[in-house]
Parts: sequence; C-alpha cells; structure tokens
Amino acid sequence: MMDFELSVTSLIDHAERFHGKTKITSVPVVGGAETTTWAEVARNARRIARWLDHQGLATGARVGTLAWNTRRHLELYFAVPGAGCVCHTLNPRLHDDQLVFILNEAEDEILFFDIDQTDRLAAVQARLTSVRTFVALSRQNPEIASKIDGVVFYDDLIAATVDDFAWTKLDERAPAFLCYTSGTTGRPKGVVYTHRSTVLHTLACNQPDGMGLSAADCLLMVVPMFHVNAWGSPFMAACVGAELALPGPRLDGESLIDLINRTATTHALGVPTIWLGLLEALNRTGQKIDSLTRSIVGGAALPPSLIAEFRDRYDVHLIHGWGMTEMSPIGTINRPLAFHRNKSPEDRSCLAEAQGRPPFGMDMRLVGEDGEILPNDGQSKGVLQVRGPWVVDHYFKTAESALTTDGWFDTGDISSIDPDGYMRIHDRAKDIIKSGGEWISTVELENIAIAHPSITNAAAIAAAHKKWGERPVLVAVRSADVTEQEIREFYESKVAGWQVPDRVVFVDALPIGTTGKVLKSQLRAEFSDILT
Amino acid sequence: MMDFELSVTSLIDHAERFHGKTKITSVPVVGGAETTTWAEVARNARRIARWLDHQGLATGARVGTLAWNTRRHLELYFAVPGAGCVCHTLNPRLHDDQLVFILNEAEDEILFFDIDQTDRLAAVQARLTSVRTFVALSRQNPEIASKIDGVVFYDDLIAATVDDFAWTKLDERAPAFLCYTSGTTGRPKGVVYTHRSTVLHTLACNQPDGMGLSAADCLLMVVPMFHVNAWGSPFMAACVGAELALPGPRLDGESLIDLINRTATTHALGVPTIWLGLLEALNRTGQKIDSLTRSIVGGAALPPSLIAEFRDRYDVHLIHGWGMTEMSPIGTINRPLAFHRNKSPEDRSCLAEAQGRPPFGMDMRLVGEDGEILPNDGQSKGVLQVRGPWVVDHYFKTAESALTTDGWFDTGDISSIDPDGYMRIHDRAKDIIKSGGEWISTVELENIAIAHPSITNAAAIAAAHKKWGERPVLVAVRSADVTEQEIREFYESKVAGWQVPDRVVFVDALPIGTTGKVLKSQLRAEFSDILT
Repeated sequence: MMDFELSVTSLIDHAERFHGKTKITSVPVVGGAETTTWAEVARNARRIARWLDHQGLATGARVGTLAWNTRRHLELYFAVPGAGCVCHTLNPRLHDDQLVFILNEAEDEILFFDIDQTDRLAAVQARLTSVRTFVALSRQNPEIASKIDGVVFYDDLIAATVDDFAWTKLDERAPAFLCYTSGTTGRPKGVVYTHRSTVLHTLACNQPDGMGLSAADCLLMVVPMFHVNAWGSPFMAACVGAELALPGPRLDGESLIDLINRTATTHALGVPTIWLGLLEALNRTGQKIDSLTRSIVGGAALPPSLIAEFRDRYDVHLIHGWGMTEMSPIGTINRPLAFHRNKSPEDRSCLAEAQGRPPFGMDMRLVGEDGEILPNDGQSKGVLQVRGPWVVDHYFKTAESALTTDGWFDTGDISSIDPDGYMRIHDRAKDIIKSGGEWISTVELENIAIAHPSITNAAAIAAAHKKWGERPVLVAVRSADVTEQEIREFYESKVAGWQVPDRVVFVDALPIGTTGKVLKSQLRAEFSDILT
Repeated sequence: MMDFELSVTSLIDHAERFHGKTKITSVPVVGGAETTTWAEVARNARRIARWLDHQGLATGARVGTLAWNTRRHLELYFAVPGAGCVCHTLNPRLHDDQLVFILNEAEDEILFFDIDQTDRLAAVQARLTSVRTFVALSRQNPEIASKIDGVVFYDDLIAATVDDFAWTKLDERAPAFLCYTSGTTGRPKGVVYTHRSTVLHTLACNQPDGMGLSAADCLLMVVPMFHVNAWGSPFMAACVGAELALPGPRLDGESLIDLINRTATTHALGVPTIWLGLLEALNRTGQKIDSLTRSIVGGAALPPSLIAEFRDRYDVHLIHGWGMTEMSPIGTINRPLAFHRNKSPEDRSCLAEAQGRPPFGMDMRLVGEDGEILPNDGQSKGVLQVRGPWVVDHYFKTAESALTTDGWFDTGDISSIDPDGYMRIHDRAKDIIKSGGEWISTVELENIAIAHPSITNAAAIAAAHKKWGERPVLVAVRSADVTEQEIREFYESKVAGWQVPDRVVFVDALPIGTTGKVLKSQLRAEFSDILT
C-alpha cells in the first residue's frame, strides 16, 4: 500500500481540492458577517505558512493564538502546523497573570490576536519573555500599531505574499497543537496534540455514531477554538467538507438564532450554558430554528430537562458527549444501538442522560478504591481510566509519565459503565459528596434542581458536617419566587431522603470559569462551613 | 499523545469490549440460520489464532479462505491477521486452473474452505504445491475426511483450544490481507493490504458521507468476503458495533428478502445484479422490506432506472459507489453537499448517476492523452489516477512499482470530475467486461481462442446485456471449419462457466490500428448490441 504521513494539512488539502466552493460564514470581532470558502481558507493558510517559514522559527516552535471563532483563526489552524510549528491556542478570558504565565512557559515566539485583546496585550507586553512578534487579526490599524510595539497586521501579511507554499514535511508524530488545561486543580498544564493524533481523532470521532458531520451539514461551532481545538470540529469539517458558521465572540441567544437562520445551520456544538441561553431567547422571542436538527453538548453534564425541551418544542436532538483536554477531547458520545429501536421512549430518554459510548480507538475501564478493576455492570462505580491514540501520555515540558504504571490515564471522574458500553459520570472525584461513607452525586442533584421551573441554574457542593463528614448543599439561581423548603420538597420523590440537600442557598449568579464551567472551588470556599 | 499501532485486531477488540452482545445472523452453507455476537466472534477468532500460532508458520505466511459470507469466515478475518499471518481470500467461483495458479503463487500454507468446495478441492489437491493443511469450515464430517487428505475441522479446533491468546504484536505496516484481481489485463495479480491501510480505509470510508454505518444499523453484507474484503465492511461493522446479516451462498431475491425481514436489516451492500434480482422478487411476490433504508451499490455502473424504482416503490435509497481491488476498494461514494438542498429533484437524480466524491485520504486527478493534468470542470475526460494510504504501490511478489513516475496509480478508467468533486466514469476500463459485477478478462478469453487450432485471431468485447450489464462476445477469424458451438465448448474446461462468451462471431479479418493492436472500439461499435 502507498504510505502517507497523517497530517493536519492533508485535511485542508482535501477540503480545498474537493470542497473548494463550500461556504464558511464568519462573524468578525467587530460584528457583521463575512463569507469565505474552504479554497480561500487554504490559500490564506498557505500564505501565512509561507510568512511563518521566513521568520526563522525552529521546527516545533510555538505560535500562539488569542482569538475567537473566526475564519482567520481557522486559517491559522492549518497555517501554523503547515509551517512546522505548534499552534498554541490561548483563552481570551484568561486572567492577565494566567495569560502571561502560559505564554512564557510555552515560549510562544509569535502571537496572533483578535483586536479586542489589544489593550490587555499592551498592558502585559513588557512581562512577556518569549513573544517577539505580535500579529493583529485585522487589516492595518494605526490605533493598534500605536499601542503594541512592532505589531504587524494579518491582512497585510496575506496581501504581501503568494500562495505557492508547500507544507513543511514532518513525521506524523510531530507536534501540531498545544492546549493548556483550565487548571481548576492547580496550575494549568499543557497538552500537545500531534499530527497523527489529530487525524486519528478526526476520523474516529466523526464516525456516524460520533460527531457524525457530513458535507450536507452546516456546523455552528459555538465551542471555542481556544478550548481543545473546538473539540476537533474544524478538522472534521475540513475532512468531510461541511459548511461552517463561526460566531466570533457573539454567543448570546439572539446572535446565535440569527446566525443559525442566516446559514441554515444543521448541527451545533457547545456547552450546556450556551443552550440554556439559546432556549431562553427562543422562548422569549418566539423565533424558530427550523434548520437545526441536532447538537452535541459537552463540557458539563447535560440536564435532562434541557434535552426534553429542545426535543419537544424545537425538534432539536441534544446529544450528550464527554471528553477532556487530555483526550483531544472526545471520550464518549451518546448514540443508540440497534436493539434500542424496540425500547420505550422512557428507557431511551433515561439512556440519553448517560455520557455515552466510546468510539473505536478509545478504551475505558473502572478502577475501585483498592485498585481493582470493576465490572461494566452499570452498578459498580469507580474512577474512570482511559487510553487511546489521542490521549495524553505526558504533559508539555514534563519528563514524567501522566499515566498509571500500566499505561492508562486517570480521568478523576467517578463513573459507571453499563453492559452495553454506556458510560455515566456520577461526579468529578473532587466534587463528589461523601456522606456517612456513602457517595452522593452532585450531577444528579443539579439535574433535579434545574428541572424545577423556577430554577435557572444550580450547583451542589459538599459542606462539612460534624456527624456525617459531608452533607450536600445546593447553591441555586432562581427566576421566580420559590422557597428553600419548596426546593427540598421537590427532591423528596426523586432521590433517597438522605440525599436531599440539607440547605438550599439562593444567589444572583454562579461563578463561571473561563471555559464556561461553574467554579465549584469558589462555591466551596464560600459555603462549605454553612452547616457547622 | 499515547501511541498505538493501527491493527485489524484493535477493531475486534473494540467490538468485543463495547458491543459484545450485538447480534450477527449468519446463513450457513447448508442453509438455515445461526446467530452469534461480536463477543463470540472475538473469542473464536482468538482460539483459531492460537491454533494458527502453533502451526509453525512464519510471520506473514499466507493462510487462504475459500468461503462464502458466514460467521466462521468473519472469525477468520480477525484470527488470521491476529496470528501474524496474511488472510488470502479466494473466490469459490474461480475455475480450477485459476484457483490452483493463485494458491500456488501465493504459497498459501493452510486453506480454510466451505464444505461445498470439498469435491473440487479433492480434485485439485495433488496439484497444490504449498497448502499443507486443509480446514473444513464445519463440524467433524467423515465424508469430507474421506475425500481430502489430512483435513481438520474448524469446530474441532475451536473446541480443542482456549481463548486466552494475545494477538501477535506487529508493526502497523505489516501485511494483513491478500486479494487477487480478476486479471483483466492478463494473469491475476495479488494486492496486499496492511494493518494500517485496513484501519485507515475503515475510518475514512465509514464517515457519514461514506459507508455511514452506525451501531443502530444492521448491515446485510451481500458483497462477497472474497471480493476485496467485502469492500471493507466487516471492519467498519466491528469499528462501530453494527449488527450483521451474512447471507452465506444464498443470494437469490427470495432468500435476501427473508434475511432482511428476519434481521431488520437497515443497510445493504452489493452489485447491481443482486438488486435487480431482489427487485424482481419483490415485484413478483408483493413482499416488503420496510426496515431497509439504503444500499451502497458498486462493482458496476448503477442503472438510473434501478435507483428510481427502489426509491419510489420501496423507499430504499441506492447510493452509487466506485472502487477497485487495488484501492481496498473504496474510491468514491455519491452523497449530496449542503447546497444541494436547494436543487430540483431532477438535478439531484442526475447527480446520483455519477460515481461520487472521494473520502478524505483519497486523491484523484485526470490525465490527458499527452500526460497533461486536466481540470475538474465536469467536461474534460481523461484517465483517472488516484493515490492514498489504501492504494496499492506494488503488486504482490513484484519488485517494480505499480505507479506512475510521480507516484499515482493509473486506474485505466476514462473519467471526468466536476467542480464539486463528483467523479463520473465514462468508459470504465478500456476493454474490460463487467458481467454481474465480476470482471472477465478479454485477454484470457482471446488467449484461449487463439489456442484453438482453427482460430487465427480473436478479440473479446463486452456486449450489452439486460440482466448482467455486459456479457462477453468473441469476434474471431477462423482458418478451418469450426462452429460457434465448438468454440464455446472449447472454453468450458478452461474458464468458469459464467466467463464463456455468449456468442462467437466469425469475421474475415480484425480491424488493426497503426501500432498493430486490434481496434476494439470499432468492434464494439459493430457488435455491442448483438445480445439485445
């Protein structure tokens, strides 16, 4: 058989050759909408790669992006690895100190940034030890030039060069992307994705039971491109030649409804918080999103009530997925099996609450407290460990292995796996509540609270308790008058009595981290003494 | 990132771990139906691999199969590569001489065979130079034992061993399968598929726009497992955990209708001839096939009338595909693009007659008569050349490259590619006869004719045929009195019955071109309607 290195650039080559005219709609940072095509993305990527190739970077040098989901960011996804460098995506919502730490640790030499990041970069520029060139993702702009020393402009680079660049030849195991974990358990750690791991993740996770993207789709990519490469969806879209809708920084419900209808979006990706906002806007404005058929939802547990409301009112199928930065990120997606065609709707919707089954390539096991392997019986709960060709083996700049002695990655999630392969996360190991030696799942308590008509969001945490060690406390945001007592009563028929939260505390808003997840550590700091 | 060798056995490992209970229905050679599961297929495959491992075979030794589509053949697909050997699938419809030639050239050391092949094997056993063990795919059977020296029985091997075998560790570029072309341009040539090429073909060609198989499907595998690994579908089914329906040798319309309804088949694969037979049986009996939604059809051009009738009467979507033994085999599949949602039904059905678009990994170009690259404009016609990680680079036991000097494989098909990437074959291979999806070599037919003492020259061409698509017709020049019937009888001991020309036409002389070659185009113009 012929042999080809698996490369990120082979994906854009395919999109250019066989889907060159396919449309990509992009909302710039300044608003409005641009349209481009896979052919133009490829041409611009080659131009930027050619420019990078002239900057004297070593193979594998880090090139940063601090940007939203736009067509220029998409071009960089192919330009940077195509020039033999590592594309290091950074989260614009990071605190300045985190941003400086990560840029310096990763030794990014060039930084591409969206222009709404100008002032913050100007403020931290003196603290950056490795970045030597800043590239604003815009046309020539004197105001930006006056703020950032030696800044150059993306559109000037495109205009000043030609697109005859031949992608840098690399081994398929060469690094292509770098993404830092959000560091909720301490300092952020870098995870490096290779060309090979990226292509295998693309092919294995876009199977019909995975992302399931086709050339007949228009994908609305709400999940940020700075967050685990937007779950790998830009590569899947290039691989199959799908249309794309890139929302820029506009992720509010109204903006998304507008973009969905403007592009005839069929498929969308995002975290539950985004879909809560979209649902609220749909219900409030009475607008429709008829083209949208399905959405893969991950990043946090998907409340069953959200699945039901999207299905019943808008005919949109929300599909549960699960993954981690360390896993490129896809671990499981929830799709039915052949024998489920005979199941009742209740059984099927109960099943849909699980995180789903792994695609080929991803292996999983449950490990008990004494290190024993637990059965996939749907009952046994243990720490979930994974392995596969798109799972980390060691963190960036770290010599020691990130794995168990027998080669598995420990996810830190308390899970069960049923005999049909469906994995269910009961809690993060650090979030789970241990009351009198028994585990209580915060995910389950939160799903129940969110199903209450007067609750818009909720987080369950462990509070210290003299007798039981820990007891559950619910921190909730309400949209209408409801009392603590009413919420506690709401639980009574739904969980065992000893699992009902001891207290319900109402707050105006939950603290949300940079990747859209609730910061439970902050809630624990505030409320963990409430029962003592 | 963790690294794993891409291996055929990783596919069955996944199916066993996450789809162990999923049902596989298999029609044995003797009739009836058995059911098994992916877990049992995996267990039996390990047992057979363990037995093979004890036979003293070198890594890469060839192990043949001469078998229909049954669960035992499926087990061998994983057992043989899992033991470090090469699974060489042989067509039970081959003429004895072809079978002996291929088995000897490939140096198969062990041959697994379906029991309806017993008598023919007994007849040729003495001519086989490499096979030292014959394994009947059945339980113990004294009649077979009396006919074939030293035969052993598959079910005995399974019963006599245990399933603790650990798959042989191999480099992912190690050979896994061997399949011979049907020898259109002379003698058949072997094509070797590696573990890596097989896994990449599986992942890339089962994308939603490819085979599109999911765990919610039951796949009816009509395409033979001796024919380019059933288009790779056993691997795709294991990869996603699909249910399977294996029809054994029963490919008539009634048997297929029965199997479809018994298994709730959703998806089917086969050549146009099979679907013509199925359609005839449906129309005649008034039966329904409600579970079947779609079928990928390849091996020969798909008549538009067949697409329309299946769609309008049975709500089954026939999808055009194209490939070659040298391509593992998938080259293109015909699926729509996003902008086609606005096209008229006429435009869409016209489009569906093309062979389709290549999946990621497959690259194609058109080359003109002077070696120039032609544009993908839908008008230019040239020889189709392909490349990709599942395309042959040299034939088995051949040192020289099978490729052009710049690394492409020349398909010999005259094609066009439109600006949206849809490839259309205008003049399949230039001389080849495709009868019911099977290739018939004109060179072979001509060589036999010319070997007859009364024939001086002969050319075989394809004549249009209502049922088989094409049938061979021989145009011959005789030097002495000989009848059409005598020539047809002359073929009977030399090729399989279905390869004998339907007609023999005698002419005074063959038209010869300037380079001394017979001008077949001229003969086709004159005789291609002779059978209609």
